[in-house]
Amino acid sequence: MQIRRAETADGPAILEIILPTIREGATYALDPHMSEAEALSYWMGPDKETFVAEENGDILGTYIMRANQGGGGRHVCNCGYMTRASATERGVARSMCEHSLAYAASQGYRAMQFNFVVSTNERAVRLWQSVGFEIVGRLPGAFLHPAHGYVDALVMYRVL
Amino acid sequence: MQIRRAETADGPAILEIILPTIREGATYALDPHMSEAEALSYWMGPDKETFVAEENGDILGTYIMRANQGGGGRHVCNCGYMTRASATERGVARSMCEHSLAYAASQGYRAMQFNFVVSTNERAVRLWQSVGFEIVGRLPGAFLHPAHGYVDALVMYRVL
Repeated sequence: MQIRRAETADGPAILEIILPTIREGATYALDPHMSEAEALSYWMGPDKETFVAEENGDILGTYIMRANQGGGGRHVCNCGYMTRASATERGVARSMCEHSLAYAASQGYRAMQFNFVVSTNERAVRLWQSVGFEIVGRLPGAFLHPAHGYVDALVMYRVL
Repeated sequence: MQIRRAETADGPAILEIILPTIREGATYALDPHMSEAEALSYWMGPDKETFVAEENGDILGTYIMRANQGGGGRHVCNCGYMTRASATERGVARSMCEHSLAYAASQGYRAMQFNFVVSTNERAVRLWQSVGFEIVGRLPGAFLHPAHGYVDALVMYRVL
């Protein structure tokens, strides 16, 4: 599996990955009804760096990185990861996260922060913890889950 | 003191308030070198509702409100407040915060979140605590303070 920068030509494959997750509305605090153009603009916008995980010509996952704040907060980056539904449980998210941690350090970032990890997304929470993230905040009832109602969201942080 | 929606004509007075705070770079994670146009576009952008606190025709403070997240997170709002340097210690920030809490509830928001309260801004932390906010997260070294170096930032939250 190769992780590389996304190119414009990856747009359709990226949409195949991110749209089902956005539409489901269970793990990302994004409008489930956004258009394909809005989704792609969000994921590949000029304020972000976008990467894809590729294997034998197939895009299995994608992640984004940006500075989480400006000014005195710009040394902390933020990332988001999505894996193709048919490629889960193959370590794609872990590989992308490890790639992002190394890349962030190479860019001079001093820490990585996840602002909004939905607490019911237990697999993600465990995965981030296994690569060194700590839960540094809990936002009570901050996410309206389509199946579970109001659930907490977690703030996770890792020094690089 | 009257708190009302900002109008385009309030732009110059708002700039007089927000530019010194942005330039100082000690309390907001915003680029201290942003242009006046960028500052005004940030504070009065279409993604926010902007209010001013006015007394005898003078604008003493201003605040912004927006949804802090989209989708399943859009029931939590986020606000930012700035007071004119010459009008501090007169309860302007407290009045704006109380106004924002009532307005947020009237708009159907269920909670208010501050994502990034610089921990050295102790007066602000005490003020937010006095109106019911709790510290629900601590971001270690997330802010590079111009005088104090790397300091923590706090996540504060109040159910409405």
